[in-house]
Amino acid sequence: MAPAMAAPIDPRTGLPVVAMVGGGQLSRMTHQAAVALGQSLRVLAIDPAESAALVAADVQLGDPRDLAALRRLADGATVLTFDHEHVPAEHLHALEAAGTRVAPGPDALVHAQDKLVLRRFLAAAGEPQPAWVEARTVHDVTVFAEEVGWPVVLKTPRGGYDGKGVFVVHGPDAAADLLEQHRVLLVEERVAMVRELSAQVARSPFGQVAVWPVVETVQRDGVCAEVLAPAPGLAADRATAVQELAVRIADRLGVVGMLAVELFETADGVLVNELAMRPHNSGHWTIEGARTSQFEQHLRAVLDYPLGDTAMTAPVVVMANVLGGAAAGESWSGPPLDERIHHFMAHWPGVKLHWYGKGQRPGRKLGHVTALGTDLGEVRARAVAAARYLADGVVEEAFAFGHDAVDDGH
Amino acid sequence: MAPAMAAPIDPRTGLPVVAMVGGGQLSRMTHQAAVALGQSLRVLAIDPAESAALVAADVQLGDPRDLAALRRLADGATVLTFDHEHVPAEHLHALEAAGTRVAPGPDALVHAQDKLVLRRFLAAAGEPQPAWVEARTVHDVTVFAEEVGWPVVLKTPRGGYDGKGVFVVHGPDAAADLLEQHRVLLVEERVAMVRELSAQVARSPFGQVAVWPVVETVQRDGVCAEVLAPAPGLAADRATAVQELAVRIADRLGVVGMLAVELFETADGVLVNELAMRPHNSGHWTIEGARTSQFEQHLRAVLDYPLGDTAMTAPVVVMANVLGGAAAGESWSGPPLDERIHHFMAHWPGVKLHWYGKGQRPGRKLGHVTALGTDLGEVRARAVAAARYLADGVVEEAFAFGHDAVDDGH
Repeated sequence: MAPAMAAPIDPRTGLPVVAMVGGGQLSRMTHQAAVALGQSLRVLAIDPAESAALVAADVQLGDPRDLAALRRLADGATVLTFDHEHVPAEHLHALEAAGTRVAPGPDALVHAQDKLVLRRFLAAAGEPQPAWVEARTVHDVTVFAEEVGWPVVLKTPRGGYDGKGVFVVHGPDAAADLLEQHRVLLVEERVAMVRELSAQVARSPFGQVAVWPVVETVQRDGVCAEVLAPAPGLAADRATAVQELAVRIADRLGVVGMLAVELFETADGVLVNELAMRPHNSGHWTIEGARTSQFEQHLRAVLDYPLGDTAMTAPVVVMANVLGGAAAGESWSGPPLDERIHHFMAHWPGVKLHWYGKGQRPGRKLGHVTALGTDLGEVRARAVAAARYLADGVVEEAFAFGHDAVDDGH
Repeated sequence: MAPAMAAPIDPRTGLPVVAMVGGGQLSRMTHQAAVALGQSLRVLAIDPAESAALVAADVQLGDPRDLAALRRLADGATVLTFDHEHVPAEHLHALEAAGTRVAPGPDALVHAQDKLVLRRFLAAAGEPQPAWVEARTVHDVTVFAEEVGWPVVLKTPRGGYDGKGVFVVHGPDAAADLLEQHRVLLVEERVAMVRELSAQVARSPFGQVAVWPVVETVQRDGVCAEVLAPAPGLAADRATAVQELAVRIADRLGVVGMLAVELFETADGVLVNELAMRPHNSGHWTIEGARTSQFEQHLRAVLDYPLGDTAMTAPVVVMANVLGGAAAGESWSGPPLDERIHHFMAHWPGVKLHWYGKGQRPGRKLGHVTALGTDLGEVRARAVAAARYLADGVVEEAFAFGHDAVDDGH
């Protein structure tokens, strides 16, 4: 029996066309994966200098909040998907009504767009999450804080990412200031967490799911700095429970494509922090570290192709983000980027580079590196030192005189 | 001390621009590798429907034999390189004279363009090769054939690939016909070969070299069908000798970029068949099967970047080409391509697909698949069955009812 076929098809290749809203690095790396599948990602970018727009053949310029731009993007595409969540749900409903396949659909996607919607869903589903309340008044915050203890965490329901829109508040005055600006806020207990985890799952419209090993994510200043795969020392039963939790959420929401479930691990278990319904920074390690990357899998899932093998290719994989550092400042006088890449390659011939082609600004995600091997300490030190050198040209003491390069651990 | 820097640099990214002559699948896969390095390959294609032109952002249309088109391609590029050899040497000399960096240079490249030039070079260098002679008359052929025995192999010095331009000749009459058409031919003994091998090496202008394990190439009708990495049962000392041979050739010719040395293995040793100075079909397995792929390495080498680690990622890797089969015929009524890809993915979730987006014609290289594992028989059967199914929709008996899919051997 033939599977449900995707349509329309690119007449030049006989293969589907995936259109992605957003021209950032997630779109850029999805295009790379599309090339292997015989496809060429259609990208909606705001600016021709965006990361994906620099490398993709089929780029449209437009605003993701403009329905006309979204309609043009969808025209002739097999399915429309996302590299970010900043797309109005009503536009996606309009596209669906006109026959466009949208993956994930707007009713699923809203749980990655609005933290209050997510909290209500998880409460109804009985899934573990921090204690929370919706606050419109200082009284709402105070009542809750007196129950769970100050400080509490106030979050804007929408628009936050990389630590933006998240505020640790120690008393009513600060809460009043924030409520004046934002009107409605999500208030959460400050979780006594041991660390952060991420569970990624892909789900196809057919309902097939694929899970990768649960990973540990290491944040600095609210931004993902490192991902350790698999999460070191995570008990097998807890790892399985977390994977099952991610699959349940994907199923109940009818997610199509990649889902990342970001979690806090505590002494007692895990609590769901937030969701992303797209390729996610916590899955960049899969490009070299798993048989099927999150980018290829996202394409397979949104096209209702059968999903690929998620087995790891090495016992330990560490991804480190290159965050714009000193080198992004105007007064910096170290080696220029191309020279830093030379030295990076000379010193770490087995560490894989992914550079996004973006302009350099302090704190901006400029690229990432992936190291593979068998010993977590060694692999992690290698990835972190390489990323730090690329960011700001600083050679760490421990790496200045030795070459760990050939011992890639395989 | 700063390394020699590449120039010019793309002002948008601070990184170099590699321009590649040719828009085929080698260029397509090089673009994929360029994306990870923060670059975007500039492609010279003849037709906008060519494999690389479908996916690259920076495509120029023009004929690789047109100097004006080559000059446009080189303008603003850091270095100019190739996905095929069909570029006149005099144009490359003209570009070099105007300051363009060409890699490999025309004096090296001619050894991949002209089989007689290669034979003379190898003879002078004392490297092993089949007995040969340059023939302008039937007498030349007959004298040689009486020495080495009929049949002999006549080859056009230039323009042959995938078995084209190669003729097994059993007597003077056939030789006369060919000489009438071609005027000058290379005549070689018909080697009693055990199998064909390929040794790939990358070399940078600085002189750094990197070698991958020697592989076995399996040809059908003169076209590469499978590549087995590493070459099964190849004695360690012979493998090392072959790698050293490839490095010597790269050094003596001053190759910059990838070099593939195609060899005949005989009972006594190896003989050099021909050279390619670009990414080569015998190295497609390196995309998943080695820490650094031939495509990334070619970019590193032509840019004089330090070279990457060539270690294998699995004990056994098999690449199988998908050659246009019955499905490319007009009267065929099997499943269309997109449906074949569905079934391929369902049956072999761990086999990696590379589809080139080209129009289907019988015998044409449409894509390739790569399987990884530990047992050669199992890995090879998986790759070959997958490639055959993709080509013509035929499910081999042994694969019709079982699923080997999850056992990916890692």
